[in-house]
Amino acid sequence: MSLVLGVLGGMGPAATLDFLAKLQALTPAERDQDHIRTLVDINPQVPDRNDLLNKPGPVLAEMAGALRGAGADVLAIACNTAHAYADIITRSSGLPLIDMIGTASAAARDSGARRAGVLGTPQALKLYREYLAAQGMGLVTLAPDRQELFMSLIYAIKRGDCGPEVRGQMAALTADLAAGGAETIIAGCTEVPLVFEAGSGRLPFIDAGETLARRCVSVCLGLEPVPAL
Amino acid sequence: MSLVLGVLGGMGPAATLDFLAKLQALTPAERDQDHIRTLVDINPQVPDRNDLLNKPGPVLAEMAGALRGAGADVLAIACNTAHAYADIITRSSGLPLIDMIGTASAAARDSGARRAGVLGTPQALKLYREYLAAQGMGLVTLAPDRQELFMSLIYAIKRGDCGPEVRGQMAALTADLAAGGAETIIAGCTEVPLVFEAGSGRLPFIDAGETLARRCVSVCLGLEPVPAL
Repeated sequence: MSLVLGVLGGMGPAATLDFLAKLQALTPAERDQDHIRTLVDINPQVPDRNDLLNKPGPVLAEMAGALRGAGADVLAIACNTAHAYADIITRSSGLPLIDMIGTASAAARDSGARRAGVLGTPQALKLYREYLAAQGMGLVTLAPDRQELFMSLIYAIKRGDCGPEVRGQMAALTADLAAGGAETIIAGCTEVPLVFEAGSGRLPFIDAGETLARRCVSVCLGLEPVPAL
Repeated sequence: MSLVLGVLGGMGPAATLDFLAKLQALTPAERDQDHIRTLVDINPQVPDRNDLLNKPGPVLAEMAGALRGAGADVLAIACNTAHAYADIITRSSGLPLIDMIGTASAAARDSGARRAGVLGTPQALKLYREYLAAQGMGLVTLAPDRQELFMSLIYAIKRGDCGPEVRGQMAALTADLAAGGAETIIAGCTEVPLVFEAGSGRLPFIDAGETLARRCVSVCLGLEPVPAL
């Protein structure tokens, strides 16, 4: 029997389904019963992680505690930005976290790149800067006006707009990062893969959600250790 | 604030994501926070609902109780067949159930059809026969060898095979039901819409999962009453 994965989701809701679909696609399964049991709180009412006046930490911690009560053994968060609250979430729930930022940063290092361009919110970029530095890597970010465009695209995707204009602008932002010296691109926001697929840009592309899904499968099936608390 | 929807899922896991995607698509939302909070237990380890030697009722009841503990106000089951255990689930969890079989049967009646052809497991067909009769409607089912083919298609979809052969055979089964006198087709198994879309056959098509999703949105947003316990 595999470990039960708890997922803090809903940030946004469509991105959570994208993560869950990748989790299922990456699980070796011939029948329902081979899949990993997943307890998911799709809570779109978590206060906006990008509004610094909000304090989503306690809400996220409470959600994690409830997932533990319902049977979760280990936790994943289907939102890069919400990892800013990882400490309070793990501390108060007592559940080990399979960390998306750390997993994606390790994948960037393993790709041989020295500088990763990250598409992410300001909060997520702070986390990626730390994690990539710990791997001896540099972070390439967008110019301020382009970062503003990025944020407007994220909110457009959350409104359900995944049309050609949004897709084109997201692709142009990856080109910006390449021009800035990035050797790989990390989709460091779970909305990005809803409009930009691996292989559509000229640089290697790391979908943080997909690398997290792959690691969740390994951990839950006992193929790699559960992260320390 | 909308009601929190608890979802018993994982039967199969891909069908649960299809249901959740429909729920999100049918929710009027401009931003994350407009969506309905959904607590989902994707539990593929529920004993097979089609093996009569299994007794999945207690497992499903325990899952429902845990969802209530985590904050669910009202329940949906993303599997037609598992509705055979609706009584023990609602009784032991104390959560009202938004019933998929009842919702789809009412949609069939509202369509003006007198006889509905249902694609479903033997257990689900028994439920549909009762519910449709209560609406004054008849049930059209497949011949035994074609029902066997239907079950083999369901297990193929659960293995991830949603290819053209499976799609073609599923479409042929809906034609069987039409030839048998059905005036509407109910996809009474949540795997069916993974390979057969509305509008692809010649009869009106009711996707039970979609009608359930639409009713869940109405109930959770307070536009229609919560079902009685």
